[in-house]
This record gives sequence, C-alpha cells and structure tokens, in this order.
Amino acid sequence: MAEPMHDPFGLLRDLPLAGAEEHFQTLLGRPGLRIERIVSDGQVSPPGFWYEQADDEWVLLLQGEAELEYRDGRCQTLAAGDAVLIPAGCAHRVARTALRTVWLALFFPPV
Amino acid sequence: MAEPMHDPFGLLRDLPLAGAEEHFQTLLGRPGLRIERIVSDGQVSPPGFWYEQADDEWVLLLQGEAELEYRDGRCQTLAAGDAVLIPAGCAHRVARTALRTVWLALFFPPV
Repeated sequence: MAEPMHDPFGLLRDLPLAGAEEHFQTLLGRPGLRIERIVSDGQVSPPGFWYEQADDEWVLLLQGEAELEYRDGRCQTLAAGDAVLIPAGCAHRVARTALRTVWLALFFPPV
Repeated sequence: MAEPMHDPFGLLRDLPLAGAEEHFQTLLGRPGLRIERIVSDGQVSPPGFWYEQADDEWVLLLQGEAELEYRDGRCQTLAAGDAVLIPAGCAHRVARTALRTVWLALFFPPV
C-alpha cells in the first residue's frame, strides 16, 4: 500500500523572511506539471518587463493582495482565494503586491 | 498575443450553499491534470470507506479544518494553507471537516 510520504507542508507557515527579492519554491515537479509557492513582499515586475512563458500558468492567491497587468492594458486585482489562468505567451507583469503575499502557481504545457 | 480568457475565479467566494453532500467542481481539466475545488460542511467519508485512487492527489486546504485518516491508522490534521501529497493507491478517508471547508485538489498520474 502506497503511503503519504510527508507530513503536511504549511504554505502559509514557515514563510521565508522578507527580502529584496521574491521567494520561489518548487513544491512538486512532475513531467508536465510544476507546483510552485511564491512569496512576495511588495515586489513588482520591473517597469517594461513582461513575462511571456512557454507554459500555461494557473495562479491562485493564497494570502495578501496583488495586481496583474497585461500588455493590452487590462488589470486584474487578486484577493485571497482568487485564481486566474494565464495562457502560454500571454504577456503579463506583476504590477502590485501587498506585504506577505503568497501565491500558488501551477505550470503545465498548453493544449 | 494570447490573452487571459476569464476574470479571476474566487475559490472562497460564491461558495455553494451547504447541503447534505460535499460539492465538487472541476476548475480545469487537461491531459494529465485535473484541478478541483471541493467544499465540505462537516461531511466525512462513510465509516469503513477508503479512497484508493489511480492518480496521485496533491491537496491543499484553503479554508476551514480537516482530518485525513490512512489505513495504517495515521491521521493528519490540516489547517488553512496545509498541503499533502496522497500517492495513487494510498488508502485514505476524510475523518473530519469543519463547516465551510474549502479544498483545492490536483489530480495527476503517478510517476
């Protein structure tokens, strides 16, 4: 019988100390799936910088607040519990984050 | 340029009314990945019932509290933000849930 291999991991506990950089931690990596926790403390993407990713990203805000900006000018404000699918190639940046903002990000190939 | 197709979905908003049954909603389905929201309101697995799944399940408690039980007698208490990987074939049941408990469950093939 397969058994659970680990005690629960507390995504909202044991947060890294706030620093100059956002904190990225891969929680699980599988072929075709990466689960990541991201902790932001007010950081934003550099002005004029756009993420354009090869993978689709499904991102869920677990704590805090954030704003995503898209190249066409649209903005999305995310509160705790809000999730959005960012398709591969969709240019986006992080325009605002609150202190102690925690994201869950899933990356997987586009269909 | 690919664009985000939807407004953010609030996993903690627009909760279904509490009923006799747990509420399951597939948020995203892809080859090799299913993202599900589960809302529990005190429901537990029937006595003697064990989930034994073909997929690995990575489950994250978003709100509320819950207890998972494994066939070998171990129990895990989950609070908001706690995640656990339940390997395929690992017999488990939900032993306790608080009212308005919200889970995020990811299902994907075992390695």
